[in-house]
Amino acid sequence: MRIDGRENLILRPIKITRNYIKHAEGSVLIEFGDTKVICTASIDDKVPPFLKGTGEGWITCEYGMLPRSTNDRKPREAAKGKIDGRTAEIQRLIGRALRSIVDLTKLGEKTIWIDCDVIQADGGTRTASITGAFIALVDAINKIDAQEKFAVYPIRSFVAAVSVGIVDDEILLDLCYQEDSNAKVDMNVVMTDKGEFVEIQGTGEDSPFTKEQMFELIEAAEKGIKELINLQRNTLKEGAARIGEEEIIDENGQVDFSQQ
Amino acid sequence: MRIDGRENLILRPIKITRNYIKHAEGSVLIEFGDTKVICTASIDDKVPPFLKGTGEGWITCEYGMLPRSTNDRKPREAAKGKIDGRTAEIQRLIGRALRSIVDLTKLGEKTIWIDCDVIQADGGTRTASITGAFIALVDAINKIDAQEKFAVYPIRSFVAAVSVGIVDDEILLDLCYQEDSNAKVDMNVVMTDKGEFVEIQGTGEDSPFTKEQMFELIEAAEKGIKELINLQRNTLKEGAARIGEEEIIDENGQVDFSQQ
Amino acid sequence: MRIDGRENLILRPIKITRNYIKHAEGSVLIEFGDTKVICTASIDDKVPPFLKGTGEGWITCEYGMLPRSTNDRKPREAAKGKIDGRTAEIQRLIGRALRSIVDLTKLGEKTIWIDCDVIQADGGTRTASITGAFIALVDAINKIDAQEKFAVYPIRSFVAAVSVGIVDDEILLDLCYQEDSNAKVDMNVVMTDKGEFVEIQGTGEDSPFTKEQMFELIEAAEKGIKELINLQRNTLKEGAARIGEEEIIDENGQVDFSQQ
Amino acid sequence: MRIDGRENLILRPIKITRNYIKHAEGSVLIEFGDTKVICTASIDDKVPPFLKGTGEGWITCEYGMLPRSTNDRKPREAAKGKIDGRTAEIQRLIGRALRSIVDLTKLGEKTIWIDCDVIQADGGTRTASITGAFIALVDAINKIDAQEKFAVYPIRSFVAAVSVGIVDDEILLDLCYQEDSNAKVDMNVVMTDKGEFVEIQGTGEDSPFTKEQMFELIEAAEKGIKELINLQRNTLKEGAARIGEEEIIDENGQVDFSQQ
Amino acid sequence: MRIDGRENLILRPIKITRNYIKHAEGSVLIEFGDTKVICTASIDDKVPPFLKGTGEGWITCEYGMLPRSTNDRKPREAAKGKIDGRTAEIQRLIGRALRSIVDLTKLGEKTIWIDCDVIQADGGTRTASITGAFIALVDAINKIDAQEKFAVYPIRSFVAAVSVGIVDDEILLDLCYQEDSNAKVDMNVVMTDKGEFVEIQGTGEDSPFTKEQMFELIEAAEKGIKELINLQRNTLKEGAARIGEEEIIDENGQVDFSQQ
Amino acid sequence: MRIDGRENLILRPIKITRNYIKHAEGSVLIEFGDTKVICTASIDDKVPPFLKGTGEGWITCEYGMLPRSTNDRKPREAAKGKIDGRTAEIQRLIGRALRSIVDLTKLGEKTIWIDCDVIQADGGTRTASITGAFIALVDAINKIDAQEKFAVYPIRSFVAAVSVGIVDDEILLDLCYQEDSNAKVDMNVVMTDKGEFVEIQGTGEDSPFTKEQMFELIEAAEKGIKELINLQRNTLKEGAARIGEEEIIDENGQVDFSQQ
Repeated sequence: MRIDGRENLILRPIKITRNYIKHAEGSVLIEFGDTKVICTASIDDKVPPFLKGTGEGWITCEYGMLPRSTNDRKPREAAKGKIDGRTAEIQRLIGRALRSIVDLTKLGEKTIWIDCDVIQADGGTRTASITGAFIALVDAINKIDAQEKFAVYPIRSFVAAVSVGIVDDEILLDLCYQEDSNAKVDMNVVMTDKGEFVEIQGTGEDSPFTKEQMFELIEAAEKGIKELINLQRNTLKEGAARIGEEEIIDENGQVDFSQQ
Repeated sequence: MRIDGRENLILRPIKITRNYIKHAEGSVLIEFGDTKVICTASIDDKVPPFLKGTGEGWITCEYGMLPRSTNDRKPREAAKGKIDGRTAEIQRLIGRALRSIVDLTKLGEKTIWIDCDVIQADGGTRTASITGAFIALVDAINKIDAQEKFAVYPIRSFVAAVSVGIVDDEILLDLCYQEDSNAKVDMNVVMTDKGEFVEIQGTGEDSPFTKEQMFELIEAAEKGIKELINLQRNTLKEGAARIGEEEIIDENGQVDFSQQ
Repeated sequence: MRIDGRENLILRPIKITRNYIKHAEGSVLIEFGDTKVICTASIDDKVPPFLKGTGEGWITCEYGMLPRSTNDRKPREAAKGKIDGRTAEIQRLIGRALRSIVDLTKLGEKTIWIDCDVIQADGGTRTASITGAFIALVDAINKIDAQEKFAVYPIRSFVAAVSVGIVDDEILLDLCYQEDSNAKVDMNVVMTDKGEFVEIQGTGEDSPFTKEQMFELIEAAEKGIKELINLQRNTLKEGAARIGEEEIIDENGQVDFSQQ
Repeated sequence: MRIDGRENLILRPIKITRNYIKHAEGSVLIEFGDTKVICTASIDDKVPPFLKGTGEGWITCEYGMLPRSTNDRKPREAAKGKIDGRTAEIQRLIGRALRSIVDLTKLGEKTIWIDCDVIQADGGTRTASITGAFIALVDAINKIDAQEKFAVYPIRSFVAAVSVGIVDDEILLDLCYQEDSNAKVDMNVVMTDKGEFVEIQGTGEDSPFTKEQMFELIEAAEKGIKELINLQRNTLKEGAARIGEEEIIDENGQVDFSQQ
Repeated sequence: MRIDGRENLILRPIKITRNYIKHAEGSVLIEFGDTKVICTASIDDKVPPFLKGTGEGWITCEYGMLPRSTNDRKPREAAKGKIDGRTAEIQRLIGRALRSIVDLTKLGEKTIWIDCDVIQADGGTRTASITGAFIALVDAINKIDAQEKFAVYPIRSFVAAVSVGIVDDEILLDLCYQEDSNAKVDMNVVMTDKGEFVEIQGTGEDSPFTKEQMFELIEAAEKGIKELINLQRNTLKEGAARIGEEEIIDENGQVDFSQQ
Repeated sequence: MRIDGRENLILRPIKITRNYIKHAEGSVLIEFGDTKVICTASIDDKVPPFLKGTGEGWITCEYGMLPRSTNDRKPREAAKGKIDGRTAEIQRLIGRALRSIVDLTKLGEKTIWIDCDVIQADGGTRTASITGAFIALVDAINKIDAQEKFAVYPIRSFVAAVSVGIVDDEILLDLCYQEDSNAKVDMNVVMTDKGEFVEIQGTGEDSPFTKEQMFELIEAAEKGIKELINLQRNTLKEGAARIGEEEIIDENGQVDFSQQ
């Protein structure tokens, strides 16, 4: 039995509060147990210089922690004048995860800014961020869709993420902070609703791991991610209608809007 | 009638959720209408160099806004590598306001870090911050009191803050963002429960104001602050028991604990 | 009697040396007793992005202290790589004070940079800065006027500032550093020649103050500012001729230049 | 056949020049084809604050690229005033990889600084860095050993790293830059000589991947890493003698030096 | 004839106002024509880490320009967050020049901070800085001497600096800004009162120069520096009494104070 | 006899490896004994703002040291977030030296970025940088020439640099680090193949020097630089063919290409 009474392969209670921030085009408060993250998606009509004139869009992510989201107060990055390496690593991961399931060529020359801000941290902030930011992203893209009606909808799949790890020789799903601190092996997995991997990051800094352990970890992650994607689907309801929609080309080689 | 249907001298609905963040020694989510700020108080056993060895404590404040707390996304100060002038100004104001009602010589060599992070902004974020941070500060100081039993309790008064302004020649209390944008005169007032002023900052950048207008503004602020302090008192309940308590000295010149 | 022999409501000797720096469009050395500040106004033909294409101008201010302007050497902000909170607060105050008396829509798409650099500090550097920068600003705007002949002169009023405070229960005008260090209450007031307030910043960090004290402080400030504006007027002489000039519209609804 | 004529699972020519920099306690120039990285290990008698007094040591890594190591000149991070996210991510990876095979409690209170500087980049700079830095680290630790004679040698295993990826549906080992740019899936694997994983980072930003593909990628990486560790062993020769050595305790519970 | 009517080897009018800033241990306003620099010397009882415990002192220099000291407003280094290369170069030069004539082992464990701030620039700011800072330094060291009575006075020589250059094939002494902008060759020379060189920096970026030209330039500089040192001597008067004083050792090998 | 057995006026063994970095338009590894510097020249089709539209080009230089190029590890400037004063001074020197021998008006609107990165330091890194960067610059300009065929070749002269100094009253050429540390006087000289000076920087921080010593130092430098330029010529071979080539104007006042 785990610290909080869960069995090894059970997620913490997950709660998603949609439209949490009134100004943002998409926003959620996502909770994985005591881990709470505000995720917003903001639409910007500019793109980075390397995309100007290409017709393609971009998705970029920033991540932050409130100073007292953690057990001990963490000095504010704005006050230190720079973001630390862990923050850089996490925001790059979230950005890759979300870009992987969007066809940026269909988005038009727009940037969607994803902000994930941890209000309270208890392990798994990056996986909660990805899982929550996906909802905010869909809502923002649906706002564009409502105005511009995408011929081809740019979101190809759902995406969610979860952590797995080995603690006292047990494979655990969705580690809380105390488990994470004691984990010999720690892995974050990002997957789509089609069961494909977007990102696997496993690290055995305290103790290397075998191939068999790696396979077990991945299976545990698959189980958790399926459940998270179900939750996303239940949260989005009709907001998810066009995800993964195929482009329909009529006999003249044109996109056939009548079928959509 | 105002945008949101209020009369001129009526506060927005105020909501204070105490113990909002589980790690912090004191924490609240305070809401002034759609303005939402997380305030935490964190105890640190170190003091700044200028206080080392004096036996005195310190209270310092940092303020931040989530990037999408505002109507348009505001670039993250951590990403820009520096805090902007407005942030510096506000966090200095909050720090002065809270230090003004604490006898730092009674606190012992500790720093209390106040963090005010705006989750959603709709005008009045600095006054909501001061009003909410006071509760977090009391809770943190009571945590110290529970362990160390202050001979003399360091908090001398309640403190709260509100904005007032002149919009279309009307004196308004507790301006929302849209009113604030149209205000000719904008004033922030910080007061104690004894009706004394801690800080007055009035600015007529768009149009100077007369002495009579200033007096009217201050009276409006007094009304609002009295109501806010009542709310603080109702929120803190017995947590407020020792605020303003006098030091009792017995006939031998010792602090008389039996009377407290 | 005060440290330097003044009575409570008497200003220190004020000295304004106009055209102090040969390169600047406007420049003064202003002295409030031992406080000495170089104020320059520089004309720049660009405006910040938010004003491009609007036809409006802008006034912005930067403030600095030479490292040994103070009693103890203050580390150079350029060496630390950032300006501190006090500097940010002061330069924002000076900027607001000067913008408040200029009709920026009449200035044309220009930025006027105000630089206030403290050569020697003895209290009241921000109020000396505002009072001196006003002269530099007028001289710079008159340089533009000489070339472009403003139909409507953009400066609407004189503006000056002074500090007041409570030391040992006495209301004092124009505090020197030693008085300022001992003040329970400290207030900076910015006013126009029409007796209207542009900014009031009063702080009782060490001891809150009553409404009656606030009124007395403001009256003391009014007295000082009137004297400072007289000095400004005497310094500027014919340079002040168009300040506050009204736009004269002839019967055809056109600006009537013949009357000016 | 690949761009440079290799078969899919063949490494580029690997060249390790030991003792490349005369000042460093350990240093190599490592070449993976046209990718050239200088790796140095520097011994510092201080440890970070969180280890002071614990008797434990630390290994930390910094990574950099010469501005023209890349196809287009990359602006210098020192000139920009901050390191970018990719650099942060890579130096954290290298640090974790090396710490994972060292028993830091045996190192004593020392920090070993690993610097990996890319002289010429053609893909795989992070995996070349890990593979080369290991040699530099062993040489530095042997310098300490020569003076202090470790009772228990702190290095437990060899460690090396390689990239694998999927390009045009082919699984490729040790991608050069052009292959890397076209890869749908990109994975970096860090392993020990015992066949255990220290780190797996696989990303399918451009196209998610299946579990079967992941297994194939990992097998390709295993093959490459075995060859790299053989090269490390041949390079180090007797320098590798104590790697993985067991602590021998005699019947009195003492470390038995005679057996070593 | 030169722009300002001088002959080729004539200095501009030099003016030194001693004790210009009341707080500093040493301070001057030095003017080389329209170039005006405030130089202060501040005594600090700490030394840099590399000197702790050695009994030696240190002299360090910082240099700055007010934003509108120049023809066009120069953005403030504090606002940019870093000092530029020219500033770094100049403050290093001034520091070396002043350290060269002080026996730091005689100073005791103190740092003297030299600040040179250009109020108005018209060429030769670095040479004016060195020449003026020398006076401030002597005054500061005399303040220490008054309290601690140096057995051996630490200042060994006078030091001053001047610029020379080639404009239209003419060798010119002490160039103003307009001459400097047109100079093919530009040289700064720092010398002592003993006619020895402390620093020579000659640059022919726009046109290389011959050995003969170099000799002529140096002779022109020698002439100017002799005059500047005479001015320093006249300014310091009895303040210069101990400069260059020899250590007198009596027959017992002790410093003989009676002779001093 | 010197530390390394050289006579006083003998250079260390000099080695130039041309085309050291495959990506750069020009690149060398230059070795002055144990000092090793990678110099690259990169062509950029943009110019700084002050040259836009003028038709002129620019040459700019950046200098860096690998952290362990030095005896003790030197903290990375990218990690500190700023370049130090010495770096600024050196990269400005290298830039001036190279610009001095190029007619930038003939280069076209291009910037050539020179990067000098010290791989191993043993004194004389700035002089090795200038001497090596010249080769890289010529190679880059020849790449432009191959495509655009300069009517007038922009490089007017060879340029090289060497250090000289006084150690134990001996004039030494090309000081290694240990000699440099003990030098009373230290001078860097930059000269062209025509025997003209581009830059002289002599400093006697530890002991001023006489005019005679200065002359001797310069003669020693001349000897060294002649040898270095011979080495450059032998390295470049036909790559040097157009250096110093005169513009040939035919009888019609046109550039006469037939003669080139």
